[in-house]
Amino acid sequence: MATTQQPPTLVNGVKVENLFRTIEAIKAAPGIAKFKFRIRNRWEEGSLNRSTVGAFYGAGQEQSRTKQFVLEADEPPVLLGTDQAANPVEHLLHALASCLTTSMVYHAAARGIQLDEVESSFEGDIDLHGFLDLDKDVRKGFQGIRVTFKIKADVPDAQLSEIAELGTGHSPVFDSLTRGVPVFVKAERL
Amino acid sequence: MATTQQPPTLVNGVKVENLFRTIEAIKAAPGIAKFKFRIRNRWEEGSLNRSTVGAFYGAGQEQSRTKQFVLEADEPPVLLGTDQAANPVEHLLHALASCLTTSMVYHAAARGIQLDEVESSFEGDIDLHGFLDLDKDVRKGFQGIRVTFKIKADVPDAQLSEIAELGTGHSPVFDSLTRGVPVFVKAERL
Repeated sequence: MATTQQPPTLVNGVKVENLFRTIEAIKAAPGIAKFKFRIRNRWEEGSLNRSTVGAFYGAGQEQSRTKQFVLEADEPPVLLGTDQAANPVEHLLHALASCLTTSMVYHAAARGIQLDEVESSFEGDIDLHGFLDLDKDVRKGFQGIRVTFKIKADVPDAQLSEIAELGTGHSPVFDSLTRGVPVFVKAERL
Repeated sequence: MATTQQPPTLVNGVKVENLFRTIEAIKAAPGIAKFKFRIRNRWEEGSLNRSTVGAFYGAGQEQSRTKQFVLEADEPPVLLGTDQAANPVEHLLHALASCLTTSMVYHAAARGIQLDEVESSFEGDIDLHGFLDLDKDVRKGFQGIRVTFKIKADVPDAQLSEIAELGTGHSPVFDSLTRGVPVFVKAERL
């Protein structure tokens, strides 16, 4: 007898049945949870450079893409660039924003929490005394980042913070940025 | 008597006289070294969201831009998305790549080191047992990131690593990511 297959239930645009299926698949074969993400970057001139994003490894095999994504970076004139693209620390804020948002949306979907709209704003402080070696006590990176999430959902006020914490509690970029990541660098002749 | 102004000397596409002028200006007025970088993000659906990058604060005043940059993020199908853009952790690798490259290029320029070409590749490991709450001992973020810089420059072999260390020793994103940043999140009703 033929069985009919139900379409996956969509919550927040996430196919939650596929999410639960992924979890069951990982329980059965833990190795498929290991992912390797990659980019390649090429310097153009001055503060202008370009990354390409293509294949990655995950779910037990190489994963190709039908096209590559190209990401650019530049600096504004006050930082000696030509302002053809967002700068590296702005890209870092985008990585954080997009990861917090997607992590929140996925984990809300898994709990059946419908979100109507989500907006967020990010601001981070940098003191150039660090980058320019003018004060060794001033760090080169962000001193702190402030984030405001604005959420439209049919939930009590008290639950808004819990929803945001689904993001901070699960986001790979938030975890990487707040706890730190070991980065191993080697240099070769081209 | 009129003085003629020399054009700034370009090294690696960087106007090094402007770089030294910036350093002198900060020594004279330390407050102008404080920058605030910002983005705004808006969730579209599922894993698709978009950041806009515009004005920032720095050099003692609000700095507007003639146009906004739009950065997208999505996930590939194996991570339940529609693959319309690089994903958040790939954006994080781009932030790291672009910042290491620009930091290396600027600080090499300040030292008069001419770089001919720079390419780099980045790979980072993530185990979904963390994101999916399947193992509390597995972190949600990157477990480690491997970077290879390939540099074409008329320098002895031994100096290639020193040039790469101009990047790791000064990059705001490298510093942020390896040492961690405090991130303060609040949630409001939209």
